Amino acid sequence: MKWNPYAAECPTRQLLDRISNKWVVLILGLLVDGPKRFSVLKREIDGISQKMLSQTLRNLEHDGLLTRRAFPTVPVTVEYELTPLGQSLNVAVDPLRKWATGNMTKVFRARERVECRTSE
Amino acid sequence: MKWNPYAAECPTRQLLDRISNKWVVLILGLLVDGPKRFSVLKREIDGISQKMLSQTLRNLEHDGLLTRRAFPTVPVTVEYELTPLGQSLNVAVDPLRKWATGNMTKVFRARERVECRTSE
Repeated sequence: MKWNPYAAECPTRQLLDRISNKWVVLILGLLVDGPKRFSVLKREIDGISQKMLSQTLRNLEHDGLLTRRAFPTVPVTVEYELTPLGQSLNVAVDPLRKWATGNMTKVFRARERVECRTSE
Repeated sequence: MKWNPYAAECPTRQLLDRISNKWVVLILGLLVDGPKRFSVLKREIDGISQKMLSQTLRNLEHDGLLTRRAFPTVPVTVEYELTPLGQSLNVAVDPLRKWATGNMTKVFRARERVECRTSE
């Protein structure tokens, strides 16, 4: 069977949609060094809502990319850890994360050129 | 200056949002071998709307990732071509595209396990 994300109905289209996502890229980057608690992820990803973080973690768990462990503390502590599959996805998104920080200045220069052209 | 997409207000957060996008990943993959017309991109990316394709191409042009050339035909022909910066982004997203098609079966197996667990 040949997977083809260019076909709308291929499941790889939906998978590509789920994993091509800034929150996924940021979450994976935080979990690469070991398990983290929900509250820590929430604090380290400035601006993510509780709902968005929960939903994204649930999808990642559903797809076998991370495991969720609840500890019977009061209040309950929940920890997330990358699976080997999640680790392999992190390796795949790492170049994207690095590209964004490594090329911001070039993108800014391109935007300035567009704005200059617009005001001609 | 240190760029940090974990900070909500850092411009790399918005850049990461723009480029972590299935349509961007699919468009770049089609342009890697040379310029293509709007109509060809529309046809090859099954299910993309005219509006979504236009908007995504406009953002990519604005960020210096591709150039747009209009030819004075009737009707007008518009062609898109990756810039060197766009080529470098394509190299960065290539592992993500490959991961999606290379790991679909593993993701399916994970989803089956979740569904079995749910019905216990």
